[in-house]
Amino acid sequence: MTQMNGAQTLIQTLCDAGVNVCFANPGTSEMHFVAALDAVPSMRAVLTLFEGVASGAADGYGRMAGKPAATLLHLGPGLANALANFHNAMRARTPIVNVVGDHATYHKKYDAPLESDVEAYAKPVSTWIRSSQSAAAVASDAADAVAAAMGPPGGIASLILPADVSWNPAERPAAPRPIKPRSTVAGAAIDAAKRALTSGHKCALLLGGSTLLAPGLIAASRIAEKTSAKLMCDTFPARLDRGAGLPNPERLAYLAEMTVMQLDGIQHLIVVDSKAPVSFFAYPGKPSYLVPEGCEVHVLAEPSEDAVAALEALGDALGAKATAPKLEAAQRPALSTGALSPESIARTIGALLPEGAVVSDEGNTAGLFVPFLTNGAPQHSWMCLTGGAIGQGMPVATGAAVACPGRKVINLQADGSAMYTAQALWTQAREQLDVTTVVFANRSYAILNMELSRVGATPPGPKALSMLDLSNPVIDFAALARSVGVAGQRVTTAEEFTRAFGAAMSESGPHLIECVI
Amino acid sequence: MTQMNGAQTLIQTLCDAGVNVCFANPGTSEMHFVAALDAVPSMRAVLTLFEGVASGAADGYGRMAGKPAATLLHLGPGLANALANFHNAMRARTPIVNVVGDHATYHKKYDAPLESDVEAYAKPVSTWIRSSQSAAAVASDAADAVAAAMGPPGGIASLILPADVSWNPAERPAAPRPIKPRSTVAGAAIDAAKRALTSGHKCALLLGGSTLLAPGLIAASRIAEKTSAKLMCDTFPARLDRGAGLPNPERLAYLAEMTVMQLDGIQHLIVVDSKAPVSFFAYPGKPSYLVPEGCEVHVLAEPSEDAVAALEALGDALGAKATAPKLEAAQRPALSTGALSPESIARTIGALLPEGAVVSDEGNTAGLFVPFLTNGAPQHSWMCLTGGAIGQGMPVATGAAVACPGRKVINLQADGSAMYTAQALWTQAREQLDVTTVVFANRSYAILNMELSRVGATPPGPKALSMLDLSNPVIDFAALARSVGVAGQRVTTAEEFTRAFGAAMSESGPHLIECVI
Repeated sequence: MTQMNGAQTLIQTLCDAGVNVCFANPGTSEMHFVAALDAVPSMRAVLTLFEGVASGAADGYGRMAGKPAATLLHLGPGLANALANFHNAMRARTPIVNVVGDHATYHKKYDAPLESDVEAYAKPVSTWIRSSQSAAAVASDAADAVAAAMGPPGGIASLILPADVSWNPAERPAAPRPIKPRSTVAGAAIDAAKRALTSGHKCALLLGGSTLLAPGLIAASRIAEKTSAKLMCDTFPARLDRGAGLPNPERLAYLAEMTVMQLDGIQHLIVVDSKAPVSFFAYPGKPSYLVPEGCEVHVLAEPSEDAVAALEALGDALGAKATAPKLEAAQRPALSTGALSPESIARTIGALLPEGAVVSDEGNTAGLFVPFLTNGAPQHSWMCLTGGAIGQGMPVATGAAVACPGRKVINLQADGSAMYTAQALWTQAREQLDVTTVVFANRSYAILNMELSRVGATPPGPKALSMLDLSNPVIDFAALARSVGVAGQRVTTAEEFTRAFGAAMSESGPHLIECVI
Repeated sequence: MTQMNGAQTLIQTLCDAGVNVCFANPGTSEMHFVAALDAVPSMRAVLTLFEGVASGAADGYGRMAGKPAATLLHLGPGLANALANFHNAMRARTPIVNVVGDHATYHKKYDAPLESDVEAYAKPVSTWIRSSQSAAAVASDAADAVAAAMGPPGGIASLILPADVSWNPAERPAAPRPIKPRSTVAGAAIDAAKRALTSGHKCALLLGGSTLLAPGLIAASRIAEKTSAKLMCDTFPARLDRGAGLPNPERLAYLAEMTVMQLDGIQHLIVVDSKAPVSFFAYPGKPSYLVPEGCEVHVLAEPSEDAVAALEALGDALGAKATAPKLEAAQRPALSTGALSPESIARTIGALLPEGAVVSDEGNTAGLFVPFLTNGAPQHSWMCLTGGAIGQGMPVATGAAVACPGRKVINLQADGSAMYTAQALWTQAREQLDVTTVVFANRSYAILNMELSRVGATPPGPKALSMLDLSNPVIDFAALARSVGVAGQRVTTAEEFTRAFGAAMSESGPHLIECVI
């Protein structure tokens, strides 16, 4: 048997622990990792052209697969390019094993041009950081990284990999570590929630994180039906399963003014793997903390706890075991005709959304109608901009498509945000991923036009307005998609959109539809 | 007189200190800064579609203007997107005032989705960091930031700007701070260099940083001519002025094997605003430190010292005042014909390079011929990938064009690196900047193919090789340029390239020429 090197034991260890996809943007210091890919056939390496695509794809993969993908990044600057989408993944509590190459251990002291403090770059987003110090140790470090990424809750485990740790001889892969289970919620928390829900006061359940797949939604809906509590969920869930036959919690609005109305009169807010609502941004003279005055907040489950079991136990305590959950009825809008608008686009998507679709939603202002018009569509998964850092939509769609072959991935994409990480389209073409990107081309940072007035910075002058304007020059997204190998077309009427979207739903492979609105 | 707010005093203070260009990628927390732009007409705001373009443009601007531009970035994730090009700027010692918006001071404790430790993100690249704590203080903070950015040596001064510091009422702008001069080199360093140069041993001068414009080059060349020392400069200078009539130091090679040959036999290496050469990366069994054994290193000037004055003083001490410097003769290659290749492209560029051109060189492997074939071209400035983080070429070209109206900017651009920050093309179109991008489309990370064998990771298998391959699908750079408003064309012969490059040199405005090689 040939002697393995550090990189080979690392990759084999990842695969043995179930981490068999790596979104990679390697450089010189990662060449032994790259060379080792052929020695471990079960590792799938997906090349991206920018590190923000790799990190966002790992986020989308982890949200859908429920287990980590690996990333492979090049030194501090390569990691830096990945950080914004890692911020989103951190907020989404997505498990990711983030492998970052570094200079050889003995080379760092020479302060070569790419020398940097990789740990300092990793720190703001990582739940676990380790710089592997020898080829003998790297397999064990990798096994620890997988376990750390799994949490609970999930997070980014950053494994820094000096070049000589990759290339030096090593012994063997390490065995997978046991995955730590979520801890059980204390009876006191369940009792407190029960007391609130049976107090006769107006109550709401606020769901987040792990509770937004069918088991949690059904358990929560039984409670809500039994007690007349309002059923709500986070503004930007990492993954929300929804559609006909599933409970449909009311999502907290992005606009604080609307959140305040949604929570008006609530006397007990029961928070389940979520947190008490705060405003996304601060605005002069407006509150940051959005829980109504006098409303009591009860934490039923923290993110590291077994929130679904807690909901089930609470339901049992309330005698809701046999209560029927409130399920969304099957219902679709009619196909749109006439002018293209955010609403007409949403109607057509609602009419045609396939069963099992995965939606990567970075539609921002223009995409707001789509959730409402897909409430009764066949069951599907919805992924939001959980951390608020734009440039997530295309990469997350890319990773979700790798995680879910056989499911259609639909990326609702605002145009301003699309320009952050459009390199993802190339990876979609290379891997022939089944992603349909719908670009809402309103040619502006529309949300900032709204925010400019919300922050009280009025009246804006021409220089200020020009900072929000994407029409000079107009970006031809269909041509941009074609330039990197993705079938792209521009549509200007609802009928054209219906034809284009319908065709994309009936064929496999990447498509981009630029909707001029 | 209307009361000013914090943002207005900040922008006015920057302008009063000569910082009157801002590369901006604002979000909600920066809306008062944006609104304040109209109150200060002398500030030019340049919108970019990705923060890595803003930071790279500020780098290109600062290298050419010798004074800072400002950036305007959105919270920790926006800063994160800017970090790779800030790494390059840090290595280039470019002065930059990096303004990063943050949540309102009182909002940070709520841990809203975009909450992050902005200082932690800023730390790896900043020479100075301050989070402004009140609208009354921000003008003074901004004046300090400009002075900190100017150094010496130059660096990135990160001013964190909470939203309420922008919007609250303030008093007045702050006066510019005095700029600290470079310190004078001690006589002992000059004496030591003189002793080495008159020892009869084989000597070399290694120039970097501030010495690579005409005054430093001429002073250094006089010394070299007087003493027969070899005249060399850094591998990737931040800015090297060159061409007919200027001394032409030999650049250290990227490949360590070649650097070793260049330094072979040198007994005294006199380092001037540079450092003793080290290998860019580590390679198994090869040295990291490239100074020959037994060679003595003498530091004539540190980056914060007045290296040009030190060279002049050393020249005087050597009696070289009247020595003629060795100047490059005017000489151009003939226009190329026939097949398109890295060399034929370089010949045509050498034949047509206009006087005063500014070259942003991220040509990597394919661009290697261009420096050699422009040695005798009319005088021009050359900017390299000083920090090694790819994705710099287009943004730096963008900023240089803003800094140098009337000079043609030519961006030598490798295709792999081009995909990092191609959003810069949109800003070039919007501002109608006079940038001609020459894409060397070899459809691979060619440098990594070379590095894969240099690190000894052979023979590579098909999975490894596919990680370096950009041909599946082929990227149509000409179409990509057109999709964001830049005149793009693809050429496949030397004659086509000559026509396209000649046309671009004779017209103003942005062009992209994709050279299929």
